[in-house]
Amino acid sequence: MASIDLNSDLGESFGAWQLGDDEAMLVLVTSANVACGFHAGDPTTLLGTCRSAAQRAVRIGAQVGYRDLAGFGRRFIDIAPADLTADVIYQIGGLDALAQTVGSAVGYVKPHGALYNAIVHHRGQARAVVAAVVAYDPTLPVLGLPGSVFLAEAEAAGLRTVAEAFADRGYTPTGELVPRGLPGAVLSDPESVAARVLRMVEHAEIEAVDGTVLTAPAESVCVHGDSPSAVAMATAIRARLDLAGVRVEPFV
Amino acid sequence: MASIDLNSDLGESFGAWQLGDDEAMLVLVTSANVACGFHAGDPTTLLGTCRSAAQRAVRIGAQVGYRDLAGFGRRFIDIAPADLTADVIYQIGGLDALAQTVGSAVGYVKPHGALYNAIVHHRGQARAVVAAVVAYDPTLPVLGLPGSVFLAEAEAAGLRTVAEAFADRGYTPTGELVPRGLPGAVLSDPESVAARVLRMVEHAEIEAVDGTVLTAPAESVCVHGDSPSAVAMATAIRARLDLAGVRVEPFV
Amino acid sequence: MASIDLNSDLGESFGAWQLGDDEAMLVLVTSANVACGFHAGDPTTLLGTCRSAAQRAVRIGAQVGYRDLAGFGRRFIDIAPADLTADVIYQIGGLDALAQTVGSAVGYVKPHGALYNAIVHHRGQARAVVAAVVAYDPTLPVLGLPGSVFLAEAEAAGLRTVAEAFADRGYTPTGELVPRGLPGAVLSDPESVAARVLRMVEHAEIEAVDGTVLTAPAESVCVHGDSPSAVAMATAIRARLDLAGVRVEPFV
Amino acid sequence: MASIDLNSDLGESFGAWQLGDDEAMLVLVTSANVACGFHAGDPTTLLGTCRSAAQRAVRIGAQVGYRDLAGFGRRFIDIAPADLTADVIYQIGGLDALAQTVGSAVGYVKPHGALYNAIVHHRGQARAVVAAVVAYDPTLPVLGLPGSVFLAEAEAAGLRTVAEAFADRGYTPTGELVPRGLPGAVLSDPESVAARVLRMVEHAEIEAVDGTVLTAPAESVCVHGDSPSAVAMATAIRARLDLAGVRVEPFV
Repeated sequence: MASIDLNSDLGESFGAWQLGDDEAMLVLVTSANVACGFHAGDPTTLLGTCRSAAQRAVRIGAQVGYRDLAGFGRRFIDIAPADLTADVIYQIGGLDALAQTVGSAVGYVKPHGALYNAIVHHRGQARAVVAAVVAYDPTLPVLGLPGSVFLAEAEAAGLRTVAEAFADRGYTPTGELVPRGLPGAVLSDPESVAARVLRMVEHAEIEAVDGTVLTAPAESVCVHGDSPSAVAMATAIRARLDLAGVRVEPFV
Repeated sequence: MASIDLNSDLGESFGAWQLGDDEAMLVLVTSANVACGFHAGDPTTLLGTCRSAAQRAVRIGAQVGYRDLAGFGRRFIDIAPADLTADVIYQIGGLDALAQTVGSAVGYVKPHGALYNAIVHHRGQARAVVAAVVAYDPTLPVLGLPGSVFLAEAEAAGLRTVAEAFADRGYTPTGELVPRGLPGAVLSDPESVAARVLRMVEHAEIEAVDGTVLTAPAESVCVHGDSPSAVAMATAIRARLDLAGVRVEPFV
Repeated sequence: MASIDLNSDLGESFGAWQLGDDEAMLVLVTSANVACGFHAGDPTTLLGTCRSAAQRAVRIGAQVGYRDLAGFGRRFIDIAPADLTADVIYQIGGLDALAQTVGSAVGYVKPHGALYNAIVHHRGQARAVVAAVVAYDPTLPVLGLPGSVFLAEAEAAGLRTVAEAFADRGYTPTGELVPRGLPGAVLSDPESVAARVLRMVEHAEIEAVDGTVLTAPAESVCVHGDSPSAVAMATAIRARLDLAGVRVEPFV
Repeated sequence: MASIDLNSDLGESFGAWQLGDDEAMLVLVTSANVACGFHAGDPTTLLGTCRSAAQRAVRIGAQVGYRDLAGFGRRFIDIAPADLTADVIYQIGGLDALAQTVGSAVGYVKPHGALYNAIVHHRGQARAVVAAVVAYDPTLPVLGLPGSVFLAEAEAAGLRTVAEAFADRGYTPTGELVPRGLPGAVLSDPESVAARVLRMVEHAEIEAVDGTVLTAPAESVCVHGDSPSAVAMATAIRARLDLAGVRVEPFV
């Protein structure tokens, strides 16, 4: 019987600004990528999201990113690798402290936004993130794009790597994400996204924007939590997976 | 034979802005109150200060403060206690993560600046800081002003409390610090400060700005690290203590 | 024929975080208190809100506040008056620059959140805000609470003062706002709020939370723009005022 | 008789963190590139620097940069052009407001740090900065590197452009600055720097790191204000220029 992990970006509110419906998403996903305060997430928000995740036995991951609240971590920053390593250690530690006070802990690391995209290719920054995880806790798995420099460097450093696929993002023919802002970057129809996820899980296949069929085995599928239709989409995905007899459970 | 701990605020640089001479101070003190990023201290700075402290076997404390880089944590902020608790947990966790990657760890907590002063009286914020330490690690000692609401609340919560005296700050007749900006708030003559510290250690006495002699037993003496004469002052203090046969060592 | 100005806090989004429906509110109000970047509002947001306001001939006011994004300017900060003056000049200037590029300009100043509340009584900060407006442009009117130290200081300094009333906030028997978080602080029923506003305009009366009837002549009425029901409430108010033959137009 | 403008980056302190000796530099330079708060410079600092500049009749320029206090604006950020335009307008406006309250005004614009370097080539960001200046005040001159895309776009948009040379930075054979961190990036010997400046002024020549002689006519020479030897260097430059009979005065 097939199984899959569903992960989503949560804890992304900041002060008076609400983003996403963490409570609703935590019923649907098995892994919560919780922001760490540098691009989103004030400590009170993070604590609340961690508490809800702990109560629902959803695993907590550290969604580390660039220090850029105004840009929501979605703008590449040419930060020196040594600074990035320190920034990532600090972020993981801050979130882990909050998670531990509610009986959970950071269980994996997933870079966010422009950092995620940069380290598909940028070796210096990829190594910087890997160095941070190794220094903090070398048993922590990392989530990333299959074929990325990041996962290659993580593997070389002895980290457990988890390849993921994106339910609601368009892919280029070479297996990268279509950049936000371009046509086809973000998918929004719940039913077609759900069918797409089932195909990922059962056949390890993703159809790129030009129709190319990519082979991309994934242990986790990312569903975005910040779009208006996020809950509807995750609900459709879970329903389709249940119907197909796919177990939704955390990656091992 | 008498002994005393010397603590100092370190790790207070931020990006391109340097403040204090951490390397020189770490030779002289036994406890380093390292900033945690909210009022001072970027992660690269914190990591460097933790590394130096670890190499010299200086204990690392979490110098937690208000989120106020522009004000250096020296302006009271009427933050809700629940938010303050989350902010403090996050700060301790971020610093502890960095400290642990260099073989050390956060060994105590000392609030900074306006937060330090506020919780001499402000019960809500005092409890919020105590709650954060209890939630993070109830074995961590806290440093504070003798007679403060903060130390009383900490003791009531079962925390180990460490009373401290200030080498280079003026005292009011009621045992509080003269606010910065008022006459007598900050002392700067190394020899008279050194004599003052020796009197604190040997007789538990401090002379207030009006000549009143305060009785204030202290387990730690704070020497500021950010003033131009900080190193000269700490050097004079250590020399005077050595001459008097006082051992300078971390509080137990 | 009676007339009244309606003002609302707008431009309060920040980066990826949306707050309020500026476009809908700009159809309903005659004065837009646009955030200035220190507690809310990134420059792109501010520019967009100014452009829409200009297109609809809605007057633009500078909604100045404490430098506190995480607290949305709703936490008192004990900032030194000289620093507050510089902060306020900078904020007005930043917003005015954006407004002028779209053919409008800052037409008045209204402090926000905790700063608004603080300067009801805090003379030092009240004078600091007044000094900023005088220095920037002494012909700019300021909006504030009737009876506040702020309006008194502004008048003493020769500024045009505009007393305002709040459509959807509860009042204490002494004419202050019930602090957020306490019962009765925020009203949410559109019809009763609309009736309340009409009474303010026609009889200069406001009923406090304990039933006391306050006499409070106001030249402007504030409708909040950030609550979910903000648009519904402003729509109801305009309908009621229209029905009663009250003209809604900017204060002179 | 030859003449030259000397410009320097000032107003770069932030809160408790001091950087550079603005008072000493304002005696030596004729144009002050004053930071605008996004990468350095809190409003109180900016106001003080503007006041001193105004008293000494030193022209004030807006030193606009990326929103990155932690990186001091020295890290490239892949910000969208529309956002950059709004950020730059806001920064110029904030500084101009402060400058006008002390009887001066922003007299030109000079991008800072990584933004300065980026727009040597990055057309999108170069146009974004130009658009901001055109929108704010099309009579404001802009300072930049000779041959840069920025100056080309500024000229095409009808702005007055001022080519500058750097007294204390190394040049590549193609006329760009050697990136900070590489050998030869920053020069520090006052006498050789002074000789270098005189050669720039008299012969429009600069020797690159490999010995290549570049021809680079400049109307202004930049002297850095944030290095420990900044004052010594600027003093040596002025002495050498005086001796050679070169007038130091603002560009027209």
